Amino acid sequence: MTNTTRPFSAVIWGENRHEQVDPKIAARYPNGMHGAIAAGIAPHLPKDSRVTTVTLDDPEQGLSEETLASTDVLLWWGHMAHHEVTDEVVERVHRHVLAGMGLVVLHSGHYSKIFQKLMGTTCSLAWRGEPDRELVWTVDPTHPIAQGVPNPILIEQQEMYGEFFDVPTPDELIFISAFTGGEVFRSGCTWKRGNGRIFFFSPGDQEYPVYYHPDVLRVIANGAQWVNSDRPDRAMPELRRAYEGEFTPKSEDAR
Amino acid sequence: MTNTTRPFSAVIWGENRHEQVDPKIAARYPNGMHGAIAAGIAPHLPKDSRVTTVTLDDPEQGLSEETLASTDVLLWWGHMAHHEVTDEVVERVHRHVLAGMGLVVLHSGHYSKIFQKLMGTTCSLAWRGEPDRELVWTVDPTHPIAQGVPNPILIEQQEMYGEFFDVPTPDELIFISAFTGGEVFRSGCTWKRGNGRIFFFSPGDQEYPVYYHPDVLRVIANGAQWVNSDRPDRAMPELRRAYEGEFTPKSEDAR
Amino acid sequence: MTNTTRPFSAVIWGENRHEQVDPKIAARYPNGMHGAIAAGIAPHLPKDSRVTTVTLDDPEQGLSEETLASTDVLLWWGHMAHHEVTDEVVERVHRHVLAGMGLVVLHSGHYSKIFQKLMGTTCSLAWRGEPDRELVWTVDPTHPIAQGVPNPILIEQQEMYGEFFDVPTPDELIFISAFTGGEVFRSGCTWKRGNGRIFFFSPGDQEYPVYYHPDVLRVIANGAQWVNSDRPDRAMPELRRAYEGEFTPKSEDAR
Amino acid sequence: MTNTTRPFSAVIWGENRHEQVDPKIAARYPNGMHGAIAAGIAPHLPKDSRVTTVTLDDPEQGLSEETLASTDVLLWWGHMAHHEVTDEVVERVHRHVLAGMGLVVLHSGHYSKIFQKLMGTTCSLAWRGEPDRELVWTVDPTHPIAQGVPNPILIEQQEMYGEFFDVPTPDELIFISAFTGGEVFRSGCTWKRGNGRIFFFSPGDQEYPVYYHPDVLRVIANGAQWVNSDRPDRAMPELRRAYEGEFTPKSEDAR
Repeated sequence: MTNTTRPFSAVIWGENRHEQVDPKIAARYPNGMHGAIAAGIAPHLPKDSRVTTVTLDDPEQGLSEETLASTDVLLWWGHMAHHEVTDEVVERVHRHVLAGMGLVVLHSGHYSKIFQKLMGTTCSLAWRGEPDRELVWTVDPTHPIAQGVPNPILIEQQEMYGEFFDVPTPDELIFISAFTGGEVFRSGCTWKRGNGRIFFFSPGDQEYPVYYHPDVLRVIANGAQWVNSDRPDRAMPELRRAYEGEFTPKSEDAR
Repeated sequence: MTNTTRPFSAVIWGENRHEQVDPKIAARYPNGMHGAIAAGIAPHLPKDSRVTTVTLDDPEQGLSEETLASTDVLLWWGHMAHHEVTDEVVERVHRHVLAGMGLVVLHSGHYSKIFQKLMGTTCSLAWRGEPDRELVWTVDPTHPIAQGVPNPILIEQQEMYGEFFDVPTPDELIFISAFTGGEVFRSGCTWKRGNGRIFFFSPGDQEYPVYYHPDVLRVIANGAQWVNSDRPDRAMPELRRAYEGEFTPKSEDAR
Repeated sequence: MTNTTRPFSAVIWGENRHEQVDPKIAARYPNGMHGAIAAGIAPHLPKDSRVTTVTLDDPEQGLSEETLASTDVLLWWGHMAHHEVTDEVVERVHRHVLAGMGLVVLHSGHYSKIFQKLMGTTCSLAWRGEPDRELVWTVDPTHPIAQGVPNPILIEQQEMYGEFFDVPTPDELIFISAFTGGEVFRSGCTWKRGNGRIFFFSPGDQEYPVYYHPDVLRVIANGAQWVNSDRPDRAMPELRRAYEGEFTPKSEDAR
Repeated sequence: MTNTTRPFSAVIWGENRHEQVDPKIAARYPNGMHGAIAAGIAPHLPKDSRVTTVTLDDPEQGLSEETLASTDVLLWWGHMAHHEVTDEVVERVHRHVLAGMGLVVLHSGHYSKIFQKLMGTTCSLAWRGEPDRELVWTVDPTHPIAQGVPNPILIEQQEMYGEFFDVPTPDELIFISAFTGGEVFRSGCTWKRGNGRIFFFSPGDQEYPVYYHPDVLRVIANGAQWVNSDRPDRAMPELRRAYEGEFTPKSEDAR
């Protein structure tokens, strides 16, 4: 849907710390979770899409002005190092989202600085690390993000995320998850901020192989396409001084 | 976005009565308003789209089961003969919308039986036939329906439609119109009903050449594409008897 | 919050058929479910409130013009006899809701004619009669309807109601329920229609003593107060013919 | 609606700079705009309410922890000195809003640090200082904030604020304003953040005597009451570690 001439560009930002410090996680995700996500969503994207990954340890934390300027959609996975992301990088990403870059926030990214800044709330929730079975129910069956997956999506083992999820009322609530423990969670939500669109999707944890689950990958790919802007230019909303007479009707046109 | 193999099919339903009884309107719209709309939106739709028109005086009021079953998106313009549309036809269209057919309701169609049935309200509003200048302001700049048009859209002469517009809170409010007289109107709104999507757009009146306005036509074309479902099948939501154990986790999967 | 001088008036409409044909249900609810609801919510309402009950077998099905005109809030429980409610009564209730009467729809009332007419959809859902444990989670903690109850509310035995619940996107989603079987349900929702407010709350079934549950009764009482209008007059929205010059600024006031 | 035993406490925060540097504004508002607002809303609040004012030049910028802890609802007017409000004060107010303190943001307060932080967007808009006539139309006639005022409210002279207003989609859109120049503005909006409620109302500018307008004062008083929480405690949402078995049904209760 983009009007630009270059191919669709999705960048997965991976914190990539669990993968370095925990051998079990490294074994589960030998290319990192970001690598698994990139490989998993690519087949669902338009043929000439460019899907790349960057990590926290890259120069400028992987998110230079140049990188962001050429990124249509940024996907974000972080957890143990949220505090290491510099305020400068957060400001930069925030500016690009408001200017029209799409953002997909995954799982523990709910507690990232950038998501908190865009939401204006704590983004806190209830959680339990012991394995639960998660059922992801569609409550907005016409939404493009819900296409191509069963209702419900069944995830055999997953960390529990439960309400109250302290986020602003979603513009659209697409998925609600149920956990074996009896909890529920608004697990697929969209918001608009400025000229940008945001999709949050909660399934996915370093302790479980969720980012190999075909339905989860399909939803993430759907989300990446949905947050992609079809506006021709990237620009932040700005104060605009208006002048008298800009829309004064001519006397012959209207009384 | 449709998964079906046949081309996108848009049908404009025109009441076609003003055009028959009022020579001035016949002169303004020699092919009917429905004809002007069809000709005007076609260039904005995918290349192989099928854009056709039907009218109230056609057999089965133009809306047989066969016609609806092969229609992706129905556009509706009616005014002086709302009451002539039979309840049977209204039920049939209602069923197809809930099953996934897109619906675009135009201008005085706000008072049609089908729109009232889908909204559950009176759909009443304030109006004034004398010419006003209408400015159509975008308040949801990321919405696909708002792409490709200036902000505001300027319509030199148009009937005034003003608040209070008695409809349910829109799922999305895309446009707000201002009139010379000082009134405002929520002029571009979306709702979801069942598996179907609805877009209402208020500009357009038999007394003015609004359906030749390029920006108005672009919005209608955008709307027709947006309400088009990407669900593979057309089916109404139904009561579903569930059974115990459908989602019982196996003991080895989750505690 | 009402400006009228008479006390707050809540009327519970009970279908009252299960209670007559099923001895077990009659034993569980000797005064009918409507009687249990009336007795249970009264202590939570303002002191001088008038809480009464009517049933399907009453003259005019309990819902004469006179009754509705003096009712601030109508609560509705129906199930096996939805089809017996006459279209005339449905039209009358519909008119009063649009004019400002509050409406609380309970449990199987989701499939009543009046709820379907106000929603514009099938209002279908998934269900299972075998006993489930229902947890009712608050997702809108600032809402007046959610005050005074634990999060979650625990209902030991209840019929399962699950998604997809075919209703328009709620204006406010207050509660989401989880069931032992793994299903979720948007169990507490509000909508506005015309000058009226609607609250749907799903817990409550003839097979279980849910209408003796103190938290359920508190929520219903909260809901009855929230849907109560503070508008001084009861009037349906109507078409309004506007005239030129109604809001023409005087030249000395504004340019 | 508050459960606390002390009276309702509203605090108007006034920047109070225009009043000190511009004799015309000082003459218009001899007690400051904050003083005019306090005097004007008090008659509409519950009888024993405490309505006080603080200003930017007060110790701790008028917003000490003690002040906020005893404030039910904070009303905010700022303009030329937004940048002087310290980040510490902004953090403190933000924390109290998320914990349940109500917030009413007035006119140029749209560009305050606290509003931007709660919204996550630029909060920019279009503006024109030359006098316009503003009509404030109600589009949510059942909302408590819209009670007691005409539709539309007529403000003879006012600064123009126009779209695009870069805020998140409001949870509720109550008022839309029209200006003589042809612009529209979403002038009365609510949002929820954490356990707090927010109301933004745009009429009111230092150059015009808008804060003596009885309808404007009534809306502000309505808003102050609506954002007031009825939650018994003030507490921010927090991460909650859940444990297995918290909601495990007992075998005899549910299958």
